[in-house]
Amino acid sequence: MLVVMDKNATDEQVQAVVAVIERQGYTARPIPGGDRVSIGVLNNPGPVDPTLFIGLPGVKEAVPITKPYKLVSRESKSDDTVVDVGGIKIGASQIVLIAGPCAIESEDQALAIAELVSKTGATIFRGGAFKPRTSPYSFQGLGEKGLEILARVRQVTGMPVVTEAMDCESFGLVEKYADMIQIGARNMQNFSLLKRAGQSHIPVLLKRGLSATVEEWLMAAEYILEGGNTQVVLCERGVRTFVRHSRNTLDLSAVAVIKRESHLPVIVDPSHAAGRRDQVLPLARAAAAMGCHGLMVEVHHHPEEALSDGAQSLYPDQFARLSRETSQLYNLLYAKEGQSS
Amino acid sequence: MLVVMDKNATDEQVQAVVAVIERQGYTARPIPGGDRVSIGVLNNPGPVDPTLFIGLPGVKEAVPITKPYKLVSRESKSDDTVVDVGGIKIGASQIVLIAGPCAIESEDQALAIAELVSKTGATIFRGGAFKPRTSPYSFQGLGEKGLEILARVRQVTGMPVVTEAMDCESFGLVEKYADMIQIGARNMQNFSLLKRAGQSHIPVLLKRGLSATVEEWLMAAEYILEGGNTQVVLCERGVRTFVRHSRNTLDLSAVAVIKRESHLPVIVDPSHAAGRRDQVLPLARAAAAMGCHGLMVEVHHHPEEALSDGAQSLYPDQFARLSRETSQLYNLLYAKEGQSS
Amino acid sequence: MLVVMDKNATDEQVQAVVAVIERQGYTARPIPGGDRVSIGVLNNPGPVDPTLFIGLPGVKEAVPITKPYKLVSRESKSDDTVVDVGGIKIGASQIVLIAGPCAIESEDQALAIAELVSKTGATIFRGGAFKPRTSPYSFQGLGEKGLEILARVRQVTGMPVVTEAMDCESFGLVEKYADMIQIGARNMQNFSLLKRAGQSHIPVLLKRGLSATVEEWLMAAEYILEGGNTQVVLCERGVRTFVRHSRNTLDLSAVAVIKRESHLPVIVDPSHAAGRRDQVLPLARAAAAMGCHGLMVEVHHHPEEALSDGAQSLYPDQFARLSRETSQLYNLLYAKEGQSS
Amino acid sequence: MLVVMDKNATDEQVQAVVAVIERQGYTARPIPGGDRVSIGVLNNPGPVDPTLFIGLPGVKEAVPITKPYKLVSRESKSDDTVVDVGGIKIGASQIVLIAGPCAIESEDQALAIAELVSKTGATIFRGGAFKPRTSPYSFQGLGEKGLEILARVRQVTGMPVVTEAMDCESFGLVEKYADMIQIGARNMQNFSLLKRAGQSHIPVLLKRGLSATVEEWLMAAEYILEGGNTQVVLCERGVRTFVRHSRNTLDLSAVAVIKRESHLPVIVDPSHAAGRRDQVLPLARAAAAMGCHGLMVEVHHHPEEALSDGAQSLYPDQFARLSRETSQLYNLLYAKEGQSS
Repeated sequence: MLVVMDKNATDEQVQAVVAVIERQGYTARPIPGGDRVSIGVLNNPGPVDPTLFIGLPGVKEAVPITKPYKLVSRESKSDDTVVDVGGIKIGASQIVLIAGPCAIESEDQALAIAELVSKTGATIFRGGAFKPRTSPYSFQGLGEKGLEILARVRQVTGMPVVTEAMDCESFGLVEKYADMIQIGARNMQNFSLLKRAGQSHIPVLLKRGLSATVEEWLMAAEYILEGGNTQVVLCERGVRTFVRHSRNTLDLSAVAVIKRESHLPVIVDPSHAAGRRDQVLPLARAAAAMGCHGLMVEVHHHPEEALSDGAQSLYPDQFARLSRETSQLYNLLYAKEGQSS
Repeated sequence: MLVVMDKNATDEQVQAVVAVIERQGYTARPIPGGDRVSIGVLNNPGPVDPTLFIGLPGVKEAVPITKPYKLVSRESKSDDTVVDVGGIKIGASQIVLIAGPCAIESEDQALAIAELVSKTGATIFRGGAFKPRTSPYSFQGLGEKGLEILARVRQVTGMPVVTEAMDCESFGLVEKYADMIQIGARNMQNFSLLKRAGQSHIPVLLKRGLSATVEEWLMAAEYILEGGNTQVVLCERGVRTFVRHSRNTLDLSAVAVIKRESHLPVIVDPSHAAGRRDQVLPLARAAAAMGCHGLMVEVHHHPEEALSDGAQSLYPDQFARLSRETSQLYNLLYAKEGQSS
Repeated sequence: MLVVMDKNATDEQVQAVVAVIERQGYTARPIPGGDRVSIGVLNNPGPVDPTLFIGLPGVKEAVPITKPYKLVSRESKSDDTVVDVGGIKIGASQIVLIAGPCAIESEDQALAIAELVSKTGATIFRGGAFKPRTSPYSFQGLGEKGLEILARVRQVTGMPVVTEAMDCESFGLVEKYADMIQIGARNMQNFSLLKRAGQSHIPVLLKRGLSATVEEWLMAAEYILEGGNTQVVLCERGVRTFVRHSRNTLDLSAVAVIKRESHLPVIVDPSHAAGRRDQVLPLARAAAAMGCHGLMVEVHHHPEEALSDGAQSLYPDQFARLSRETSQLYNLLYAKEGQSS
Repeated sequence: MLVVMDKNATDEQVQAVVAVIERQGYTARPIPGGDRVSIGVLNNPGPVDPTLFIGLPGVKEAVPITKPYKLVSRESKSDDTVVDVGGIKIGASQIVLIAGPCAIESEDQALAIAELVSKTGATIFRGGAFKPRTSPYSFQGLGEKGLEILARVRQVTGMPVVTEAMDCESFGLVEKYADMIQIGARNMQNFSLLKRAGQSHIPVLLKRGLSATVEEWLMAAEYILEGGNTQVVLCERGVRTFVRHSRNTLDLSAVAVIKRESHLPVIVDPSHAAGRRDQVLPLARAAAAMGCHGLMVEVHHHPEEALSDGAQSLYPDQFARLSRETSQLYNLLYAKEGQSS
């Protein structure tokens, strides 16, 4: 933290800031500049709260210097974390494909889609049993019945399954059935849910919030690691901007930043970013070319009859093409050389 | 819903869209235009999901026509809802001031601030017992001890109190102590929490999410009303934009839109929008001039020692000025004429 | 500028940064911290370019400390600038109302509107002769004919007139007729036009760009002041965000920031921010309550027949109400005490 | 255009809207729905202005149905436009690399960089002679001297050159020297400049504005085509969002949308999107994987000494790798099959 004083700040004002710093148990180091004084904050064990200083008399700005995250930081652990989801490794030398419908609608639907995507490259199955929906009048998912269907899909196809937990009440139930638990974008800063996930023995897929900075996203992961669960995969799924030609704007530079700042694996969900089928394949190609560790894609054998998000679900043959092309280009760029980018 | 076809869409493609519409039990009405066909969707009881159509062959766009909300809509209830919080009426002819510290730190702190703001115009006391914090290392609130202090504040000062519930587990506990329960911006689409709030007998203060549209915000309120609780107050607190000179950008036109679209009262929180003390007074004036039904303001008697959000907390004399000025201008513009704007 | 090094940056990397700083003629001051070194940049006459450092080996971040603007800064001139537009003073103790149609359509139209707004509080007349339009097929304005009509309006009503110059070619022509020249939002960073405006003897109304930061906006004004023209009025007119219920999102905290950071007067245009008539009055009230020095409002006597932007133009009686109410509340809050807060 | 009426709109209000439509010479077609009337607008030759209707009594919304662009639309010309820049074809079956420094600093610098990038895959040279800079105190480019150096580069290396024209005054001068003229992001809606470019015989590179929608961007291109110049290449360079880890957010879905909506070629500038060197290579890979027709990349042989934007300039060996990898993956995905995606 660097506290920048006004040009005409008085000595008393500088001393008041020094006192605030020392009251926290930190060290204050005033730095006289050309035309104004700045005061460095040193020996702080964790992040310093800028709001301690903003608004004090004579203070122009409080500039954070170091990042607030610790456990998720590559500075604290330099080698890549590899997350094991029922035997499938995310963060290792291959791009992992997670595919399935938005929502589990029936056993027939789930098995039909699972078999199609399993044959064409997917190694983890996805499907929602508890669905967060903007409208209380929309289909809310099958609940535990959906979880049972997921368990059946795993039994039949051998694929591990990922599904969303929406609250602490049902977390234990989801834990019983799933191989990885998703925390959705709208719950990225549901801190109670993050703490519960920190106590879980199961890997967590943490989606980025619609308007979360990378720093906030990593701090959400920090909650989980701080609770004791180190098996976290991050998922970029687009952020909200002024743009209207896609549902969200896929922020692919976040993949590069996560890979530099954190040791956690990062995957991309092009389906929710696009919100429409015709953008999913090109965005998936782009994400693979960025070197993300996996892709999560919605696939439906009859998208026009899907109970939710049909518009962004791929037809099975579109997924087959996506699978083939993204693997080829990931291998071209990344496989030989490990995760270097 | 209007489904707009490509210029060169075939009759078969048009018929396929009609079939999708009719499969939902709706009525399809094709409208031949100058150079393309559009198909109106009629007799739909609730909102129509545009994703049923986007991505179908020959479909250019699916344009929602009617709003998805019902119970919160002014079309369903034309007169203003007045919410009674321990005897204080929000949505009636006066602007209501809710004030207090960001977090309850101790009984002494809470009582000291409560007495100061009570004398200068506040009629509801606010203070966090459970605090949603970006970092797991930040002060998380006093929990039930904080709730007990709030009850003590009410007993001593007579002011009803509002405080946040962060999850379903602690909702019942908060309900036991509070006169109004806040659902925070990061939980605006925590649908489990919204459903729980729908079963409460206590008024709910629903803050707008950081990047929520007005429609999504009203749909979150719809969850609460649909659950049976009609006592909802909406709170605009700034949205996330590219702007960096304030923590968020206060979207005051949302106040006008809510007042037109919904019968629910709407208040404004200038403290969280600004994130810095020197913008709170002018933004509060602006909000009052928009005709919002109340203001929620952070006040601390020693902001430089506050455990959270000190930078945006007003000094007591600043709050006194805010109270005086916003009441004057609200009365100038709105009091004589009721809520017309 | 503070250059923050990686935790494990080497001495060589620190020395390389020092060398870059000294090559610019600045002074480098390394500051050893708890776990990393930062390097202060001192004695730089103007702003330091952060891109000198980002990407150098061992550099984590380059944090600007001081603002890049000089002439527009309140640190360089502490008293408010008052801009004189044909005898009307903007930035003094009253709120100035600028009103008129979006585009000049005919002498009859212009005179009819001018007389209506002149009677109800407007003291400067606005109207476009050269119109920037998104579509080449939309009405582009009357050109010089429109300027002649503006001159006629001034002659008949006595009101000074403001109109937009879109390029350097026509700048001289506009200068011949107008009392203040507007530079539109889309041209805020048309640096050739800004330089031309710097050579003008006429006041300039500089609208904020659709996604300009306050810093970029002030730097655009800096171009004009640096060219020798100190008569600049800034105009906030909404920024582009994800929000869809208004055309743009009016960023009222920018008014507070400009008043703190700069000595230049700042006005607000609620018409372009809203894009729809029913939000103009409440936003105008809010802007006046913020203490802006003026309002620019579109008014049309027959909005439904306007050649451009009819949807946001007020009816004359709506403008009369806006004028009365904004003056009352500006006087209530600001007039007695000058420009404080 | 579809005009949606309030539920309780009167017949008179419906008739008033019909009258407005017919006054424009269009056809009005009222569509009675389940609970409200909508009115279709037919037989309009160009786009319909929604502001004709918003704000009229009884009108709830005016929903545009058809796109406003014509000449740039794939509906008006279905085959891809190929733009010839001094013999290099953009929009044909290969990905074109445009490379060079941000600003031309000297003949030695320009030639040194040009020879390096020419050997490693670039076929068009870029470099600024007139530089749009946020600060009037920053290096503004060498002007005509810079253009002469560009001509010398072409003579020595055989590469055609692209450089920016900032205003109509200097447009003719730039035209004399350049093979393609760039219109920068900040000038995307400088309509005078667009009209001037429409009269040029030289291809135009039109960068997307910082907060422009795809529709506004295509309308800017429409100005150029409408003026008679059909040789336009579009360039995505990132948009402004709340994100802070990159200078702008590269909106890659825009590439897919442009390829669907327009016949014009589209390239991507990862350097300005990223604003920092370490993100340029991964974003370039992603852009190539999207199937863009070219990349524009900043390269400098001594980035730490560059007069502008050094932080985002690649070292020559980084460019060589970018060139190799983007060609490989473009060929893998697109070359065999033409432009299909």
